[in-house]
Amino acid sequence: MPGFRLADIAVRFGLELRGDGDTMIDGVATLQAGRTGAISFLANRQYRKFLKDTRVSAVVLADHDAGESPVPVLIAADPYLAYARIAALFAIPDSAEPVIHASVVVDASAHLGEGCTVGPNTVIGAGVSIGAGTRIGAGCVIEDGCSLGEQGRIAPNVTICHGTVIGDRCRILPGAVIGSRGFGLAPSSQGWVEVPQLGRVIIGDDCEIGANTTIDRGAVDDTVLENDVKLDNLIQVAHNVRIGAHTVIAGCTGIAGSADIGEGCLIGGAVAVLGHLTVPAGTRINAFSLVSRSLPTTGNYASGIPVQEAEAWNKNVARLRQLADFVTEMRAEHPKKESDD
Amino acid sequence: MPGFRLADIAVRFGLELRGDGDTMIDGVATLQAGRTGAISFLANRQYRKFLKDTRVSAVVLADHDAGESPVPVLIAADPYLAYARIAALFAIPDSAEPVIHASVVVDASAHLGEGCTVGPNTVIGAGVSIGAGTRIGAGCVIEDGCSLGEQGRIAPNVTICHGTVIGDRCRILPGAVIGSRGFGLAPSSQGWVEVPQLGRVIIGDDCEIGANTTIDRGAVDDTVLENDVKLDNLIQVAHNVRIGAHTVIAGCTGIAGSADIGEGCLIGGAVAVLGHLTVPAGTRINAFSLVSRSLPTTGNYASGIPVQEAEAWNKNVARLRQLADFVTEMRAEHPKKESDD
Amino acid sequence: MPGFRLADIAVRFGLELRGDGDTMIDGVATLQAGRTGAISFLANRQYRKFLKDTRVSAVVLADHDAGESPVPVLIAADPYLAYARIAALFAIPDSAEPVIHASVVVDASAHLGEGCTVGPNTVIGAGVSIGAGTRIGAGCVIEDGCSLGEQGRIAPNVTICHGTVIGDRCRILPGAVIGSRGFGLAPSSQGWVEVPQLGRVIIGDDCEIGANTTIDRGAVDDTVLENDVKLDNLIQVAHNVRIGAHTVIAGCTGIAGSADIGEGCLIGGAVAVLGHLTVPAGTRINAFSLVSRSLPTTGNYASGIPVQEAEAWNKNVARLRQLADFVTEMRAEHPKKESDD
Repeated sequence: MPGFRLADIAVRFGLELRGDGDTMIDGVATLQAGRTGAISFLANRQYRKFLKDTRVSAVVLADHDAGESPVPVLIAADPYLAYARIAALFAIPDSAEPVIHASVVVDASAHLGEGCTVGPNTVIGAGVSIGAGTRIGAGCVIEDGCSLGEQGRIAPNVTICHGTVIGDRCRILPGAVIGSRGFGLAPSSQGWVEVPQLGRVIIGDDCEIGANTTIDRGAVDDTVLENDVKLDNLIQVAHNVRIGAHTVIAGCTGIAGSADIGEGCLIGGAVAVLGHLTVPAGTRINAFSLVSRSLPTTGNYASGIPVQEAEAWNKNVARLRQLADFVTEMRAEHPKKESDD
Repeated sequence: MPGFRLADIAVRFGLELRGDGDTMIDGVATLQAGRTGAISFLANRQYRKFLKDTRVSAVVLADHDAGESPVPVLIAADPYLAYARIAALFAIPDSAEPVIHASVVVDASAHLGEGCTVGPNTVIGAGVSIGAGTRIGAGCVIEDGCSLGEQGRIAPNVTICHGTVIGDRCRILPGAVIGSRGFGLAPSSQGWVEVPQLGRVIIGDDCEIGANTTIDRGAVDDTVLENDVKLDNLIQVAHNVRIGAHTVIAGCTGIAGSADIGEGCLIGGAVAVLGHLTVPAGTRINAFSLVSRSLPTTGNYASGIPVQEAEAWNKNVARLRQLADFVTEMRAEHPKKESDD
Repeated sequence: MPGFRLADIAVRFGLELRGDGDTMIDGVATLQAGRTGAISFLANRQYRKFLKDTRVSAVVLADHDAGESPVPVLIAADPYLAYARIAALFAIPDSAEPVIHASVVVDASAHLGEGCTVGPNTVIGAGVSIGAGTRIGAGCVIEDGCSLGEQGRIAPNVTICHGTVIGDRCRILPGAVIGSRGFGLAPSSQGWVEVPQLGRVIIGDDCEIGANTTIDRGAVDDTVLENDVKLDNLIQVAHNVRIGAHTVIAGCTGIAGSADIGEGCLIGGAVAVLGHLTVPAGTRINAFSLVSRSLPTTGNYASGIPVQEAEAWNKNVARLRQLADFVTEMRAEHPKKESDD
């Protein structure tokens, strides 16, 4: 691991140093785990209790927490953001030499920009264009006519189907499937007839697509992710969905066809968003919620129910299933009873 | 793109033409996006407002909507179905020449029918049989003893485990896993003991299996999908499930072990169906619902709750968790209060 | 299929035989499907009705059910566990010869133990260590610095990212992704900034990871699965989650970052567990539930609502969304009405 003087880190990221600038930092650790040589951060009050006994060598934190630190600190207006930038010093660097592995199958008509790396057994189809500096892992399949931007990171075993367009600096995690057939079916007297899916997937710059996440191509028009959209693992994005810039979606969420999600939304995990509806920019949806209609205004929405002890819950469910009748009954005039007198 | 005379399209699909039959059609577009040369369709009333200003060159629609079209039309009893068939004219055709890529690893005992295509790095095990005209993408693994029917389409990076049987004209999307071990565990004093999963997966004709969907092999008997079953992406089908013909299931749904789903069901996305239960033929289950017991009769079932503003929702949840007690309290005789007089 | 004398099976697994020990057993079947030569088991009372007419040749069951069997029986204190062990006799054996396929790409610095098998097109990175007897399927990618224990079974198309540590006798099913980037993002005025994910995934002995399940690497510390953890398909385990020994989780469940799940928990399918919370050892969580806070004590928790007919359900939902107001209204003193007299 490389080591850095704390004072040099402070200068590099424009942070105020308090304490010994000669402290050497060679990695990161949590406050509670700690270890000599590591830098940590304090951004979530829940973890403040670990500060005073921490065994790390330095901490990134806000000015108002600095007094309690037993070790040198870097003061940041946003400690988590400052930590994110510092931690990048300790990430495993990309291999120095860009290499197209000998086993790669590349169509003669594909174009790979300068400094691309392609891992073993990856298959690149006809007319594909890959921007400079993009690194593609092993076992990927990039079908005909795809266009990938510069400085991308495509992990192993990713499938990108024909005609997909991906912007610069995107990160696609292992097993993701982008641009496969949308789920379009027309009923007929002989069974289901496939509706050809003739649109594409268009992904902007700086997007992240999680492991085993799936994004379907459009049926007629395209499925679109704008810039800086961040999708966690195991998310389903159906045909003709549009997701606005900077929107973040947590794992296991599904977005049905033609849903239109605005910019800057935060959508929790295990949410279901139905099709042909609109979610306004800046909307926040809590985990395990169902969005079944267009939301009228920006806000924080929810419909998840936290667990309770199963026996009590089952009784409540039994009543819930009769709730409408109960309300009607209660709202009807209470007939006067003999015993009331 | 090939171009087609509108009059020729009308004859080919048995539709009534109204307007200029010499109109050239070279692709599809939505009514709202439009473009010269494209054909569109009107099947969902929600989109009717886009008809009168559309810039497409022709529209497939029902007789009663024809009067409002500013462009030539094709009249169809079922415009969506007619569109599905017309749109197939503009799908990217399969490559002309069937090819077994040089990098494919095929066991000597496997049999590939006439006109099969197999993409780079795909691995085909001992005793596998692939029907005529089936096309298999790159990076697939088809284990020993599998049987695939004719005219199938297996996308890249699909895994089909040993002994799986798949019928004719099936479509398997990227990353799908068919026939892996069912989740069978027996508790013992030394921890969990694996229950061998000795059944297979049997899939009928004309089925579609979505991207990254998983279908487990049976524990003792087989897991079975009948003909024309259509599964969207990221669906889990556990061991010994049976799904009846023509049933359609939307993304992110999970079906637990030994559930028996009848024919012609429509199951929404993000539904959980528990094990050892029966869903009658023709049942419709709305998205984000829980099926925890056998359903007594065909019908339309639901248990999802749409979002509301989180602050209001949290108050409702607090009351829901006490609902049984509240109902009991309310149903008890209201004691007469002094202030009532 | 090999055949075994029923008497020999009884001796081998320490079970009491009642009936003809010369009965030959060559496989398994359910009681209801049955067939000559098969052995079945009776562990779930729901299936007892099939015993008296079964066509299998022998049944493993508890002493109190033995009297009703029309065929020879093996008496077991735990018939399902005994069956699990017997059924292993009929599983497809591993290929006799361990083979590293010629197409495998192994870094020169990787170490494979004795008796390892590696399928075609698998890629093994620098510094990887694979324990003796571990079998790795085709199309896998095992990145730099991973350590896998002995006697493991890695199915095809699995991705194991750099630095992952996996114990002995683990089973990883197709398409699983272990150790990919956690979903760490810090907001900035220029959009989302990636928080480097510098921890690893550490998996103990005897674990099972389901098909297309994803387990993210830790952000700072590691993501940890202790011994004998069993995960079904399509599960998401986020960064820095800890799952205690012997815990079993069913399909489609998601566990958010830094959740701490105790030992011996049983978590149903399609459950959402939010982050930074604790689930005590021995907790049982029913399917389709939301765990949004630390659970105070071991118990059986739930929040799923079973379906009812959609029309009735929709009326109940409308009332639920006003429940807090309704309770407040009802609890307010009922003003005495004229008609009460």
